[in-house]
Amino acid sequence: MKVLIVHAHPEPQSFTTSMLHRAVSTLEAQGHAVTVSDLYAMQWNPVASAADFGVRKNPDYLVYALEQRENVAAHAIAPDIAAELDKLAECDLLILSFPLFWCSVPAIMKGWIDRVLVSGKVYGGVRFYDRGGMRGKRALLAYTCGGRDYMFGADGVHGEMDLMLRHVLRGTLGYAGFDVLPSFVGYHVPYIGDAERAAVLERYDAYLAQLDGLAPMAFPTLDDFDGDMRPRERAPQEVAQD
Amino acid sequence: MKVLIVHAHPEPQSFTTSMLHRAVSTLEAQGHAVTVSDLYAMQWNPVASAADFGVRKNPDYLVYALEQRENVAAHAIAPDIAAELDKLAECDLLILSFPLFWCSVPAIMKGWIDRVLVSGKVYGGVRFYDRGGMRGKRALLAYTCGGRDYMFGADGVHGEMDLMLRHVLRGTLGYAGFDVLPSFVGYHVPYIGDAERAAVLERYDAYLAQLDGLAPMAFPTLDDFDGDMRPRERAPQEVAQD
Repeated sequence: MKVLIVHAHPEPQSFTTSMLHRAVSTLEAQGHAVTVSDLYAMQWNPVASAADFGVRKNPDYLVYALEQRENVAAHAIAPDIAAELDKLAECDLLILSFPLFWCSVPAIMKGWIDRVLVSGKVYGGVRFYDRGGMRGKRALLAYTCGGRDYMFGADGVHGEMDLMLRHVLRGTLGYAGFDVLPSFVGYHVPYIGDAERAAVLERYDAYLAQLDGLAPMAFPTLDDFDGDMRPRERAPQEVAQD
Repeated sequence: MKVLIVHAHPEPQSFTTSMLHRAVSTLEAQGHAVTVSDLYAMQWNPVASAADFGVRKNPDYLVYALEQRENVAAHAIAPDIAAELDKLAECDLLILSFPLFWCSVPAIMKGWIDRVLVSGKVYGGVRFYDRGGMRGKRALLAYTCGGRDYMFGADGVHGEMDLMLRHVLRGTLGYAGFDVLPSFVGYHVPYIGDAERAAVLERYDAYLAQLDGLAPMAFPTLDDFDGDMRPRERAPQEVAQD
């Protein structure tokens, strides 16, 4: 299996970065080939702009998604984006590795999503969810946060974590066509000691060892929607069976 | 009322930017004072890093939130962040104005959130939700998207839009203590003509004219949780009344 880990943390000695290193060694020991895009180390530019395009379909008015399509087709997209697109095309599994910032990915990683998940290749027209461009690939989130696990349960003060991350899990990875595996979360990280951190890494190892046993999250199938993306009328016998 | 509009769009002629201009003129005509932070025009740096701090509590290991607290107290936070913090402190209403990128804000705006909503002022310890630092201020999202409104209903292909944006509405603005008003959304924008766009701007005017009539979204009160943020046991008579 080819694995691409996109990682973002402003502190190279962070526990989240230890998780990255553990993932690399564990996955390589399993015989997988691992590529890492360490966004802070790469000084990744997160800002989607006209500078991303070598050619322009419309030089006077920027529609970012249209120019993505144009520039991917013309091999004229910015070299930093092109390099990530090559890694993405190669991979069987994408891991986003990050500390939770405001119930989402850090801005530098949001900018990887904004710039690399290009229209025309990753999605476009009615190519999303089970018709998305990343069909056949798997993806997962591996992240750390300050809160405790019970704060993100159904009765927790913040509600379910997967609802907080719905924009990434469903709105981004699911939309792009990935099979999205349940996330790995390291809770309460800033407040725990070495022994507890070692236990999180052990748990991460165990998680990475049984990825094939994880059922992907359920997202809609476009078969249930018509060409205008309205829910299809079901045949009366189907309704009667409900 | 003092209004801060934080705006991000890579095309200065975009419809989303027309919405910004309309908001400024409509709110000023109502007698409000409006300040705009146009992040693309400002070439806002979205990347949270050690460079944001003039002093360091721990120069060898970066814990971003801890250094935010330290540097706000020492008046040593980066000048671009300090300027935004002043605008934020002044405002009664914060408007985030943007095109939806991957069911969230563009990276440049995520970087405003990551860097400006500092620990120690906006939140910190048990200062969140109804005890958050932004208590007494209101906030709203005004955004455009490519999809049609019915795609983001409860039965729509993407489910409810407010669930996709829960990380911003609840996880960011609600968490920080703002009263979060229902969002204004311009749907299907890349595909509609001038007359329809004019109608969206009219609808935006009407929305901005009746903000006082909008009930804020409901988020948890910390009164319902104990010091460890576990749900409080309720007295038996309260339970009996359920």
